[in-house]
Amino acid sequence: MAAEETIAVPVRGHLMAAEIAEQPTVWRHILAESSDSLDEAAAAIRSYRPRFVLLVARGTSDHAALYAKYLIETRLELAAGLVSPSTMTAYGARPDLREVLMIAVSQSGGSPDLVRSLEVAGEQGALTLAVTNNPDSALARTARWHLDIRAGAELAVAATKSYTAEVLTLYLLLSRLRGRLAPELDRLAEVGERTLALDPHVVEVATRYRFAQRLVVTGRGFSYPTTREAALKLMETSYISAQAFSGADLLHGPLAMVEPQVPVILVAADGVGGRAMMPVLERMTELGADICCVGGREAVARSTVGLVLPEGLPEELSPLIEIIPLQQLALHLALARGADPDAPRGLRKITRTL
Amino acid sequence: MAAEETIAVPVRGHLMAAEIAEQPTVWRHILAESSDSLDEAAAAIRSYRPRFVLLVARGTSDHAALYAKYLIETRLELAAGLVSPSTMTAYGARPDLREVLMIAVSQSGGSPDLVRSLEVAGEQGALTLAVTNNPDSALARTARWHLDIRAGAELAVAATKSYTAEVLTLYLLLSRLRGRLAPELDRLAEVGERTLALDPHVVEVATRYRFAQRLVVTGRGFSYPTTREAALKLMETSYISAQAFSGADLLHGPLAMVEPQVPVILVAADGVGGRAMMPVLERMTELGADICCVGGREAVARSTVGLVLPEGLPEELSPLIEIIPLQQLALHLALARGADPDAPRGLRKITRTL
Repeated sequence: MAAEETIAVPVRGHLMAAEIAEQPTVWRHILAESSDSLDEAAAAIRSYRPRFVLLVARGTSDHAALYAKYLIETRLELAAGLVSPSTMTAYGARPDLREVLMIAVSQSGGSPDLVRSLEVAGEQGALTLAVTNNPDSALARTARWHLDIRAGAELAVAATKSYTAEVLTLYLLLSRLRGRLAPELDRLAEVGERTLALDPHVVEVATRYRFAQRLVVTGRGFSYPTTREAALKLMETSYISAQAFSGADLLHGPLAMVEPQVPVILVAADGVGGRAMMPVLERMTELGADICCVGGREAVARSTVGLVLPEGLPEELSPLIEIIPLQQLALHLALARGADPDAPRGLRKITRTL
Repeated sequence: MAAEETIAVPVRGHLMAAEIAEQPTVWRHILAESSDSLDEAAAAIRSYRPRFVLLVARGTSDHAALYAKYLIETRLELAAGLVSPSTMTAYGARPDLREVLMIAVSQSGGSPDLVRSLEVAGEQGALTLAVTNNPDSALARTARWHLDIRAGAELAVAATKSYTAEVLTLYLLLSRLRGRLAPELDRLAEVGERTLALDPHVVEVATRYRFAQRLVVTGRGFSYPTTREAALKLMETSYISAQAFSGADLLHGPLAMVEPQVPVILVAADGVGGRAMMPVLERMTELGADICCVGGREAVARSTVGLVLPEGLPEELSPLIEIIPLQQLALHLALARGADPDAPRGLRKITRTL
């Protein structure tokens, strides 16, 4: 056998691991190549002058849409809502959508219910925009404007790089509308690389959770979409029963479920949302919860275990890095539990709901 | 001892059981006594001519708000959204809310973050309405209009009668705006009483789930808020890890978590939402899931076990009765597992988040 010959050994989880690691590179592509299309879409939206923004998405993309909703509410100061796709498809609603900007978010751009929702929205007077990973998709063709998230082919069933590519693309669009891009974008990819280096610490957390039956993820504000996405990744890959709650909602009832046998992942990056989690952290500690904090140094110091995020990003960009150790956790926990994160049972990459 | 003397024996769960059973009576009160205040609020909203509706709530009331969102989208054909209270409190957003109707829903009317959100909404030009169980509450006083849900004092920590009282009050308001009340309202309370009679069958389901570690609740359209509320009740009272998913979202990822050890409660009342659940029921059956259907006779026949709901209500009123056997299930499962549903650990009746 010649020395340069190698045998390709399929390693469980290698697709997901590669796509997690690729994220800073994807972000660099977006920052380098998307300016023109973002400027164009932003100009069209500005001249349309929306009074209300609706978002429509499913699964992972719904969490990117939820992130956008926080940005729209807090930074653009416009009222926003997440549309239930069934209202315009199964129920056939035809709302008056003049002065409404309707944004559909989808990795594949192939979900028929999203295509139909956007089609109806356009007929009802909305300005329509699709954010997808496929410029040739039905959703991209249906929308008046399309933004390509430039994540490249996503092969793992569990979406990772397409999630942060959607989040970053939505951030860049909405920040243009606001007329202010964070100067910290320059170092975003580098901060992402430093976050990836948390991996050996994440492996330790995965070992700790190896036999957990269920798990709670909690956060507030811009970190709330992160908790939803983290819970979905954990469910998809390691079949753990992971539940996401906003820190405020958790105190309203589901708290009864938290006990020392149920680990709590608390996302608290530095900022308004992270500060608002401190009373939740206190209450959990009183209840004897086992807490893993993903966030700032101070919050981690008050938790059972923790993963300290690199500093230097404004709160609204933190969701891009917060999710990374949680994607890594979903990967390592699946491997530790004997599952193949690249081929979760019962799942298909594109789900066709009508 | 005189014959009429009795000793009050505290029975675990008696408060919750009494409040579940009281619901048809509460509905009769609302139908008999709320017409004037509903007419007045509806007239004010009509003359305001809202273009968008925002809802703000937490916990159980958030599920009533989600129900209202479906009604607004599908029946009033207005764009609607659920506001994250933190955007106007923690993040201090001041959105332009002219032509917006903002509805806050809260049993106690005491949550400071909801009061503040409504206050800000009023300052920003919205017409504000509070739906509460306490006309003297801060929320009722802050809102331009208030609707009393007339549920009477709610003593159990797990809200039951206040949930359906909120749902019915919101239905009656929104149906007035639409100019059409379902004629079936005449028999609503009687159908509610027949639903309560499912109790012995619910006890059997509770026995079946006695040792379940986790549980999935799924439904679509008007039944989706029911699944969220059912999951919250189960978590609050019996500390089971219950997760709610829209049938469509379930197929996008969390499906990987469904296995024969995880019972699935599928809510499928007759109607558009119930019909849209049939492919989900099929897929679950393929995966070998243990399915308990709460719904129409046909869907129940295709499930492992089931609870057949009385017929005769239109789809938009079904949420009022669908939740009843699920409240009963939360009660009986808590009792079977040795918990006290009237005093869930770690919970307070009014949660104060800022």
